[in-house]
Amino acid sequence: MATIAFIGLGNMGGPMALNLVRAGHTVRVFDLNHDAVHAIAEQGAIPCPSSCGAAAGAEVVITMLPAGKHVRGLYLGESGLLETVAQGTLLIDSSTIDAESARVVAEAARKKGLEFVDAPVSGGTAGAAAGTLTFICGGSDDGFAQAQPILASMGVNIFHAGAAGAGQVAKICNNMLLAVLMAGTSEALQLGIQNGLDPKVLSQIIKVSSGGNWTLEKYNPCPGVMDSVPSSNGYQGGFMVDLMCKDLGLAAHTATDSGSATPMGSLATSLFRLHAAKGNGRRDFSSIFEQFEQQNNKQG
Amino acid sequence: MATIAFIGLGNMGGPMALNLVRAGHTVRVFDLNHDAVHAIAEQGAIPCPSSCGAAAGAEVVITMLPAGKHVRGLYLGESGLLETVAQGTLLIDSSTIDAESARVVAEAARKKGLEFVDAPVSGGTAGAAAGTLTFICGGSDDGFAQAQPILASMGVNIFHAGAAGAGQVAKICNNMLLAVLMAGTSEALQLGIQNGLDPKVLSQIIKVSSGGNWTLEKYNPCPGVMDSVPSSNGYQGGFMVDLMCKDLGLAAHTATDSGSATPMGSLATSLFRLHAAKGNGRRDFSSIFEQFEQQNNKQG
Amino acid sequence: MATIAFIGLGNMGGPMALNLVRAGHTVRVFDLNHDAVHAIAEQGAIPCPSSCGAAAGAEVVITMLPAGKHVRGLYLGESGLLETVAQGTLLIDSSTIDAESARVVAEAARKKGLEFVDAPVSGGTAGAAAGTLTFICGGSDDGFAQAQPILASMGVNIFHAGAAGAGQVAKICNNMLLAVLMAGTSEALQLGIQNGLDPKVLSQIIKVSSGGNWTLEKYNPCPGVMDSVPSSNGYQGGFMVDLMCKDLGLAAHTATDSGSATPMGSLATSLFRLHAAKGNGRRDFSSIFEQFEQQNNKQG
Amino acid sequence: MATIAFIGLGNMGGPMALNLVRAGHTVRVFDLNHDAVHAIAEQGAIPCPSSCGAAAGAEVVITMLPAGKHVRGLYLGESGLLETVAQGTLLIDSSTIDAESARVVAEAARKKGLEFVDAPVSGGTAGAAAGTLTFICGGSDDGFAQAQPILASMGVNIFHAGAAGAGQVAKICNNMLLAVLMAGTSEALQLGIQNGLDPKVLSQIIKVSSGGNWTLEKYNPCPGVMDSVPSSNGYQGGFMVDLMCKDLGLAAHTATDSGSATPMGSLATSLFRLHAAKGNGRRDFSSIFEQFEQQNNKQG
Repeated sequence: MATIAFIGLGNMGGPMALNLVRAGHTVRVFDLNHDAVHAIAEQGAIPCPSSCGAAAGAEVVITMLPAGKHVRGLYLGESGLLETVAQGTLLIDSSTIDAESARVVAEAARKKGLEFVDAPVSGGTAGAAAGTLTFICGGSDDGFAQAQPILASMGVNIFHAGAAGAGQVAKICNNMLLAVLMAGTSEALQLGIQNGLDPKVLSQIIKVSSGGNWTLEKYNPCPGVMDSVPSSNGYQGGFMVDLMCKDLGLAAHTATDSGSATPMGSLATSLFRLHAAKGNGRRDFSSIFEQFEQQNNKQG
Repeated sequence: MATIAFIGLGNMGGPMALNLVRAGHTVRVFDLNHDAVHAIAEQGAIPCPSSCGAAAGAEVVITMLPAGKHVRGLYLGESGLLETVAQGTLLIDSSTIDAESARVVAEAARKKGLEFVDAPVSGGTAGAAAGTLTFICGGSDDGFAQAQPILASMGVNIFHAGAAGAGQVAKICNNMLLAVLMAGTSEALQLGIQNGLDPKVLSQIIKVSSGGNWTLEKYNPCPGVMDSVPSSNGYQGGFMVDLMCKDLGLAAHTATDSGSATPMGSLATSLFRLHAAKGNGRRDFSSIFEQFEQQNNKQG
Repeated sequence: MATIAFIGLGNMGGPMALNLVRAGHTVRVFDLNHDAVHAIAEQGAIPCPSSCGAAAGAEVVITMLPAGKHVRGLYLGESGLLETVAQGTLLIDSSTIDAESARVVAEAARKKGLEFVDAPVSGGTAGAAAGTLTFICGGSDDGFAQAQPILASMGVNIFHAGAAGAGQVAKICNNMLLAVLMAGTSEALQLGIQNGLDPKVLSQIIKVSSGGNWTLEKYNPCPGVMDSVPSSNGYQGGFMVDLMCKDLGLAAHTATDSGSATPMGSLATSLFRLHAAKGNGRRDFSSIFEQFEQQNNKQG
Repeated sequence: MATIAFIGLGNMGGPMALNLVRAGHTVRVFDLNHDAVHAIAEQGAIPCPSSCGAAAGAEVVITMLPAGKHVRGLYLGESGLLETVAQGTLLIDSSTIDAESARVVAEAARKKGLEFVDAPVSGGTAGAAAGTLTFICGGSDDGFAQAQPILASMGVNIFHAGAAGAGQVAKICNNMLLAVLMAGTSEALQLGIQNGLDPKVLSQIIKVSSGGNWTLEKYNPCPGVMDSVPSSNGYQGGFMVDLMCKDLGLAAHTATDSGSATPMGSLATSLFRLHAAKGNGRRDFSSIFEQFEQQNNKQG
């Protein structure tokens, strides 16, 4: 069992840290939100007065923050974590941020002789609570080997995508494609519906045909086709449109940096932003299905 | 065993008719191409001088033609099949055509007291030869029940999508979504590659994550990731870009008729047409992957 | 002055026929809608009991119908106009229809020794009433030369785009581009607004810069920037979303026929259909501007 | 006449500084490229050993740099220009950079009591040489009033778009729309050509119709339609695809920051990146026209 500093106790970080506690690790926690710290301290974590305080004496530091600027701010600079942690400390950032920030921090860590692993997650708050997250990691083979058993207390699938930043790149490639699948599946189902087909029957046919994809298998966007998915629960819960928009913004950033053309992903981005702009930001992302509905069965 | 007229002995129709012969049916065939007729006659089919000649005395008529206008031309009109076939003849059209033509012929058949089933296929020439096609059918419950055992000699999955025309609608919904999956997966893999990832690793990760879809499972578009797929064979064989463009044209037609918005499918259509216009019409459709390649790793 | 048969007295055809009456022509009219016939008969037109009745004895026939199937139905067939009009009659179809139908009718007319000119219009009901329409014509030089003075009673700009069908093609190229301009200008203005700019100032700058286009010059989609345009009148009047969708459907049809890739036009098509599907079909097409609005200045 | 420091003597900055010299200003110049400094020093500018050296004693500082990070790096920080220039110095940045960087520098300048104007240009190297650039400015009314007479030595149209950063926002709104116009016009012309129309005739018609826009008026992308434009000169000269891609990357950045949906602009971005990726980065941006060409008149 290890001594682990966990910094960032939001909707995801809180339950993740709790799973580390339950696995028997010594978990030192910090967040600007006192209530979040208090809640997990009651479950056995050790509250600390600052990030550096939490990291002092820890063998592993895990961070879960909103954006690249927060990660850079925490690790870099004169009073940053890289200056204060002990040699041999393993650094894991599970935030979903731009790949460039991940690479910059990893390179600064390398110069200090520290292993830094970018390890963004998927699986949502439900996966965080259940300890069934997916981690997609970037970093050296050594860093990944050290991180894996720690991450195994919080997740099930733990991938090594490549060198520093590769975890972030792989995650946004996946999530950009997910946005394409969800938008594309929604419009295909609506095209069928608007031409008289039953969405249950159509979903069954496509699911086992060449149009088959994760959304039809696990997350059908059409209300009433599958039980226990957000579309059958008023699009509550799940993965919020705003979070998808955040990931798609990171994809746009990465594509611009590499000069990559992503026509399908960019269009899905626009569709999700249009959807968010109409007040749907906090609904599940499969609610994009509604964008393709016709108020009457024909325009006009 | 039944007496079946089979009209249209092209790359798909030829091997389909042959599987009916092998299953023990009496198969009466016609095609404007004498060589095609001759080839299957050598295998036991009965060559006929005309469509109506083939249909005379048949219990089932199966047609496999290029486009809606051919299907209308063959079934409708004063000397059309609907005027000449015997009462009780089951009519099955396996052509991939616009849903409206299928509905028009089905309605004309209904007025004559005949069952007409639209039953477009997927699975390509390999599936036709192997007898492993998928049939997606539209028509009445009775018509479908009669068609199913006949189709079972040529295919494995036989779906009933709904009423007349529903087979055509379901097929183009599926194939439009397939085009979206292939274009979206290609650009996501290229985005990863252009940011330093190994496409094999990235494919493995996405395949079991929320970006998972048929193209990653069965038909990876990146050369060298999977064996025995067109991308690892110079994009030869498989499903031609021109045929995908044909199906996407039918999808555009259907969407216009119902006033449906299909932004993702329409963009995929444009990408495939751009690809075809550069001389790739006869290559496998997964070659769309090459459209996203950078000659140098950065533009300029 | 000529004797002219005018068939199709809808929102456009009615005022067009009236301008011919006012110019001194003898105008024989027919429409299935008796009220429409009655209204223009009171202004001096001669009501006729049928299309062929109207055309009998006319030197010129002008038709203004909803779709290609109506035009084919009227001109072709055993009792069609081509069979009944006198030699030397000039045929002008001002309907906006698919180019293929225009070419089919023109070819049938040519075989009868008749000149047929496709002459779709732009300018809307206001232009029809004021006699300031634009006609974009396809047909032979002779046919165009004969049509021009007749059309000059109803319009100002009269273009000869090329051979049969070219009028329809040119019109849909223009209108597809117009949809692109309107959607693109709307999102560019909204991007500015959402980043703190005044749409009046931004419109002024772009209008005289390289982003300048007809919508900024004549038809600004942002309420309050220009007077006397639909956007400053609750998007009433002008060119309805449903009619733009109709023209974009024709563009899709034409692009499919020629295998042309029209990514920008296809995306604009999807955006206008999404807009129509939300109940905006009968509002002016510049209301697409509202699709890009953010309920709050940020998503979420 | 003023003493002006000009920093950044590239393809644009060099001729701009020269126009200031010719207008009679005392111009102190710096660039890392000694040849560029030497060339303009021969025309009467005063070479300086550093940016701060050039700025010492200048009443106005003008900067022309590649990207936001260079602008931040030059103005901000302990040895940045904001720390070294005299009170009352007017700061003008004519670089095309992200609006956020412009706002950050402007705010830092404001805290020092300095006026900072973002003043990106359009008009290309030809406009820079001829002194006919367009400047689109952001900043206070006072700052703009002071900048205007200086900029008038280098350009003709000088706009005040709004507060700090507004110049950058307005420029990228314009250029994003320009990309939409160029791509949309190209595909509309190709659709016409692929359906038998003469591009000269079609251009004439659309130019005076509702599809009219700057590209048809000044910069027709189809070879042979207009003289003296890049399309009639092998797409040499003009505005490079790579530079358009740079501006479109800034537009993507701005849209992500404000959560704005820009479907048309994003699609144009993808089309220009695809074009760049095929080796066209250094050709004029109107060469996007070639992307829509069909090798044969039909796919396949």
